[in-house]
Amino acid sequence: MVNIAILGYGVVGSGVAEVIDKNESSIENGIKNEIAVKYILDVRNFPGDPFEDRIIHDFSIIENDPEVQVVVETIGGVGVAYDFTRRALLAGKNVVTSNKELVATHGHELIGIARERNLNYLFEASVGGGIPIIRPLTQCLGANVITAVYGILNGTTNYILTRMAREGVSFDVTLKEAQRLGYAEQDPSADIEGKDACRKIAILSDLAFGSHISPELVRTEGITAITEEDILCAKALSRRVKLLGVARKTEGDRIFVYVAPHMIAEGTPIAGVDDVFNAIVIEGNAIDEVMFYGRGAGKLPTASAVVADVMDVAKHFKARKYIEWSEEKPGFVRNAGELKNRFCLRISDAAEGAAEKAAALLGELTPVDCDGLKTGTLAVVTGEIADSVMEAALPELRPLGSSVNALRLFK
Amino acid sequence: MVNIAILGYGVVGSGVAEVIDKNESSIENGIKNEIAVKYILDVRNFPGDPFEDRIIHDFSIIENDPEVQVVVETIGGVGVAYDFTRRALLAGKNVVTSNKELVATHGHELIGIARERNLNYLFEASVGGGIPIIRPLTQCLGANVITAVYGILNGTTNYILTRMAREGVSFDVTLKEAQRLGYAEQDPSADIEGKDACRKIAILSDLAFGSHISPELVRTEGITAITEEDILCAKALSRRVKLLGVARKTEGDRIFVYVAPHMIAEGTPIAGVDDVFNAIVIEGNAIDEVMFYGRGAGKLPTASAVVADVMDVAKHFKARKYIEWSEEKPGFVRNAGELKNRFCLRISDAAEGAAEKAAALLGELTPVDCDGLKTGTLAVVTGEIADSVMEAALPELRPLGSSVNALRLFK
Repeated sequence: MVNIAILGYGVVGSGVAEVIDKNESSIENGIKNEIAVKYILDVRNFPGDPFEDRIIHDFSIIENDPEVQVVVETIGGVGVAYDFTRRALLAGKNVVTSNKELVATHGHELIGIARERNLNYLFEASVGGGIPIIRPLTQCLGANVITAVYGILNGTTNYILTRMAREGVSFDVTLKEAQRLGYAEQDPSADIEGKDACRKIAILSDLAFGSHISPELVRTEGITAITEEDILCAKALSRRVKLLGVARKTEGDRIFVYVAPHMIAEGTPIAGVDDVFNAIVIEGNAIDEVMFYGRGAGKLPTASAVVADVMDVAKHFKARKYIEWSEEKPGFVRNAGELKNRFCLRISDAAEGAAEKAAALLGELTPVDCDGLKTGTLAVVTGEIADSVMEAALPELRPLGSSVNALRLFK
Repeated sequence: MVNIAILGYGVVGSGVAEVIDKNESSIENGIKNEIAVKYILDVRNFPGDPFEDRIIHDFSIIENDPEVQVVVETIGGVGVAYDFTRRALLAGKNVVTSNKELVATHGHELIGIARERNLNYLFEASVGGGIPIIRPLTQCLGANVITAVYGILNGTTNYILTRMAREGVSFDVTLKEAQRLGYAEQDPSADIEGKDACRKIAILSDLAFGSHISPELVRTEGITAITEEDILCAKALSRRVKLLGVARKTEGDRIFVYVAPHMIAEGTPIAGVDDVFNAIVIEGNAIDEVMFYGRGAGKLPTASAVVADVMDVAKHFKARKYIEWSEEKPGFVRNAGELKNRFCLRISDAAEGAAEKAAALLGELTPVDCDGLKTGTLAVVTGEIADSVMEAALPELRPLGSSVNALRLFK
């Protein structure tokens, strides 16, 4: 019998209890052992809940109970979650989490504490929700030198972009609908400004490239500036707009890591990933490329990834997983300004001379042959230019239209 | 230092040696240990090969060398490969393989021998080549009750079907081209008749549903009967023709398992899997669905999966993997005749009265609105009918045209 304690009885935490209960016999069959939820820590009470009798409010009960072997942290954030995770590890307990912010920010330190005590700190659910990605990346693809990891890492923004493309409606209208359906939070900023994807690509980079990458080093751009006209331009270029987190090894083994909306060529598998689905592509020197697709969020998918980690801990109390990375290496992350891309530049209500000004700043431009744009909208594709060139040009171009956006072409 | 012996220095075996050599430092970093190729067993000599000095011709040298901890079997087939695998396990050596035929046929027995001796018998490369699938299925998705596994499991047939669809050429012409490019073997029967996919879906079913399923119980249909007109009908129905291996749990926890070409709706991720790529979808009661995509064959992708297994063994000499299943359960596999599907029936040069005859045998039929069919070709879609109904009807319909085919609609 493996006794666990769940910290935080929210969406994922209650999902963990539900999956353990519902799939009891297949879990037992898989690990030749039983998992029992001994405590659930939450500030609230849950009268009438099937797990009501396990609810406690004092973390020290868990910390001091030698029967608790695994602590499941589903609180989120870097406040008490960080404190409780440290204390659980220091008390000799394995920890499993779905908390991407905590792993992205303090993962290196927490794994270090776990390692010193021969414990596991596992976080499969922190990236890609229910999609198996961390174990495949670190184990199944372990015989590869990884050259790139990228993907659609946030379901909310993918839902919004999919609806905008299908129905031709604005970002604001689609966001409101997503909020109504529960696909976007009331404060959607972490999703739509790319912060959630930023944390996830930081974790994937840590694992793929072996050194801690602080989320602050990840150049992050969300989807709030995207208009119906950008979507039309993408269609005209046989492309789809997707928010990607990208990490790519370059010369000297330094990496580019960034989050930005891209126009991806239709017909590639990742371009077909729609609605709330996520997909992660890994490129390796032996494997070429593999892609993992599924539900990147949601109660039961995420919970099932957490429970799989608990099962893995239960099978390996003596053999630690080598899922870890070294501390931050100064200079390892390249300045995103050096990144080269083609861009689709769109200027609505373009002033006279805008095209000439853009060409002077950005070099040769190819017009996008796109029906449906408003009269006076300028849409062009640049040659391959450095991010810094586009960044320097945008402040000069913005005054030349009512709205200006530049989207990267992916490959 | 972990000493290994490679059995069979063909495409995959030489790829294993190459990956170990090329990615030495990242492998060592992953397992905190070194992998050394001590022997390579083959009937041939390889003068000038970088591993020439490891080539031996006598298996008993490997069997009797206590320094060899892992044997990599890349011979293929169920002859000497079976014998050597048994002997290696009986001699106390872990075995890693890419041999799908052996795993599908004798996997249950070989895993049993390994279990009794606390050894690992691992076979990630046997399904999906370099795509991580076996570990995700058994470990990462371990908290799910699996309800279905299906996929495009054979790259050769997918290449042929993709080219037929893109270029409108016949099966025979495309097969010859695939042979010329090395995507199809000179004797292509194992691929085009579905036997390769049959072995792979048998292994996936073993793992997903927990009991040995003999490949002979898998109803298997290849792609040799598919014509350009079938491809045109699929397009008219906004579908793509793909050879699928399918295993699905039904009432009473019995399963359907079969290999057959299907027409899959465009826009679904699996419909977009083209050329030699493979993809495997897993449905679970918590995860909904996940898909794994990549190169299902090829020297380095397959070799990298083999080496990842070797690395896993090296990390777990004391902790066995529970990748196993019970013996065959009589009645577990349902008669494929009970399976229900809609079909697209195509009769070329249909005789007068063929439509009425088909309707009499198959029930209500909807004509396929398809340009480009030859005059006199009848193309219709049935309602949901049992496989046995179609099977009984086909011998009566065949005489009514120059060529007759019936393809399942997937979902």
